Amino acid sequence: RDKLRSKVMEFLEEAKKLGKEDPRRVIHSLKVGLAICLVSLFYYFDPIYEGFGISAMWAVMTVVVVFEFSVGATLGRGVNRSVATFVAGGLAVGAHRVSSFCGETTEPLVLGLFVFLFAAVVTFLRFFPKMKARYDYGLLIFILTFCLICVSGYRDDEVLHQANVRLSTILIGGATAVIICCCICPVWAGDDLHDLVAVNIEKLGNFLEGFGGEYFKTGDEESKDEDKSVLKGYKDVLNSKSTEESLANYAKWEPRHKRFRYRHPWEQYLKIGAITRQCACRIEALNGCLDSQNLASPLVRARIEESLAKMSKDCSYALKEISLAIKTMTIWPSLAKSHIANSKIAAENVKSSLKTDSWPDTDLLEIIPAVTVASLLIDVISCTEKIAESVHE
Amino acid sequence: RDKLRSKVMEFLEEAKKLGKEDPRRVIHSLKVGLAICLVSLFYYFDPIYEGFGISAMWAVMTVVVVFEFSVGATLGRGVNRSVATFVAGGLAVGAHRVSSFCGETTEPLVLGLFVFLFAAVVTFLRFFPKMKARYDYGLLIFILTFCLICVSGYRDDEVLHQANVRLSTILIGGATAVIICCCICPVWAGDDLHDLVAVNIEKLGNFLEGFGGEYFKTGDEESKDEDKSVLKGYKDVLNSKSTEESLANYAKWEPRHKRFRYRHPWEQYLKIGAITRQCACRIEALNGCLDSQNLASPLVRARIEESLAKMSKDCSYALKEISLAIKTMTIWPSLAKSHIANSKIAAENVKSSLKTDSWPDTDLLEIIPAVTVASLLIDVISCTEKIAESVHE
Repeated sequence: RDKLRSKVMEFLEEAKKLGKEDPRRVIHSLKVGLAICLVSLFYYFDPIYEGFGISAMWAVMTVVVVFEFSVGATLGRGVNRSVATFVAGGLAVGAHRVSSFCGETTEPLVLGLFVFLFAAVVTFLRFFPKMKARYDYGLLIFILTFCLICVSGYRDDEVLHQANVRLSTILIGGATAVIICCCICPVWAGDDLHDLVAVNIEKLGNFLEGFGGEYFKTGDEESKDEDKSVLKGYKDVLNSKSTEESLANYAKWEPRHKRFRYRHPWEQYLKIGAITRQCACRIEALNGCLDSQNLASPLVRARIEESLAKMSKDCSYALKEISLAIKTMTIWPSLAKSHIANSKIAAENVKSSLKTDSWPDTDLLEIIPAVTVASLLIDVISCTEKIAESVHE
Repeated sequence: RDKLRSKVMEFLEEAKKLGKEDPRRVIHSLKVGLAICLVSLFYYFDPIYEGFGISAMWAVMTVVVVFEFSVGATLGRGVNRSVATFVAGGLAVGAHRVSSFCGETTEPLVLGLFVFLFAAVVTFLRFFPKMKARYDYGLLIFILTFCLICVSGYRDDEVLHQANVRLSTILIGGATAVIICCCICPVWAGDDLHDLVAVNIEKLGNFLEGFGGEYFKTGDEESKDEDKSVLKGYKDVLNSKSTEESLANYAKWEPRHKRFRYRHPWEQYLKIGAITRQCACRIEALNGCLDSQNLASPLVRARIEESLAKMSKDCSYALKEISLAIKTMTIWPSLAKSHIANSKIAAENVKSSLKTDSWPDTDLLEIIPAVTVASLLIDVISCTEKIAESVHE
């Protein structure tokens, strides 16, 4: 019993955490409850119920299935479902007309053939990457509606009426979902995508800011756990691709809102995201240098520590400026430009100090780690430049 | 009109390509068509139709919605849908009993409250990461069934009968989908995951194999496009995380088949995948060295070319051996072990040649690129070792 109790406590803890992390989740849950309650009122008002009968349940179903977290996703599913039902209904009625010209015995065979053909072809369509990204749900609903109407129509001969009722109930349900989703604390996928891209760039900046200190600190100092978690932030960036892509897909459905117009260049965000991930890859390699035991020797350190630290600091400032510029949507971060220039100068310093100093009394092997770090940092800087360019576009 | 024609041709081309790439897609489409046809036979046999009436459509719906590409996904959705319908049906009947104790006027209010509460709470449950991974669909269906039965029950007072019919039609539909999916050319998610992990490791090996040649070739030789595409293979690895995770989730639903037992350690594959991606990150950084213009100077090259090339070759052989060992599921690739040992020796050679030779007449700056490559390769080797260890587990 104590075990059960601790399980329940754990569960509640997690629920609380999830709610605090993003309060929109709680609001979303309440919105879904509200939308379903609203739509189920249809059952209680006799005049509406008389019109639709048992089909009124399609409205409830549509709300449950269409209502998603963000406005874009809800709109996308709603439009997909409505259009697919409309097209499939039309085709199914057509198929009925065609098959009714055949004899009593062949009619079910012809209908079965239609069902088989459409189901197979549309299922195959779902494998097309472009289709899958935006119309997957619509294609599924197409198969569903077509088969339902084709098959049930054979029975009750009221095909047109049935198709009509199904379409209007689905429109009512879809409209309810979309209106409630948009009007009560809407969650915009575009906003989320925008913030995600900015936060990802900021995380890289955070890493680089902490990196200098972490790399050059003497072994005695214990780094705080706090610092460590900042350094781990870039790992999320590496795995952000699928989230970004689905958010961009949803965002394309969204109308003009807040700072974004209808055809905002969402593709550009994916590009920035891709370069950010490339940069994060370099940083993962840098992180490998941190973990490995062969740090630079004190002598080497003393000579190039300053320049290396400056490189990473300036680069981190540049990244943070870019992230800020994205967040506030200002045109072009001139500060970032100067930071990049500064870090390049620092990189040149490192290079020249390697060149001019003759390093007579040091082992070449001892410089290697520092050199690796330097050249990775140079890579990171050029990535940062690319990010800045894409943001500018 | 010509435009339309070329569009259609393009479309057919792509369809052909998709079909050739993975013929199981075509078979899957035909399977879906067959399953729907089978289930729609219920409408044509009077005895069965009499029993279920219009509810027979739930069977068709279930087949359309549950039938997925892999056995694991289909089973998962089928079980989710059946169990969720059963539980939701039971609870909805209970809610009805409770509300029927209230007066005529309060009854719809109490039912509405139940609907709101359950919908909101279960929607929130869908945000739990663990729930989302395996039971997302079940929770959706739970809300759906609960609301439908609660709401419609108020009308026709045959709640129990309706819940019963809904459950049995869904079971019939689910069973049809699962049986056809399993018996006709089944696609196992576990197999796919297994192959994906092996192929990803192989792709890294391919890159390293080509890398030596590409890095040390003189500027005159034009590299063939073929080579380039091999070198780009690792990029897919970087983005494989979400695919791997969903495959692992599906695989957990699958029963014993072919070489896998029921509780195959699928988590282990995710671990291997994570290390593979880490390794791919280093390789992305190596690739950055290829693209950048500052290649090693001829003099430096001559000295360490051989050892560097040997490092990358041996490491690539080791990766390929590991991949092969996964594919054939042999216990432990001793060949891989010796390749790793070889590449480590080569790495030591590079180190010592950097150390012992005094490099009097060369500019330190010219060695830097080569040094970077070397230390990245050393990182890759240690990653390879980690992969080998995880595979061993």
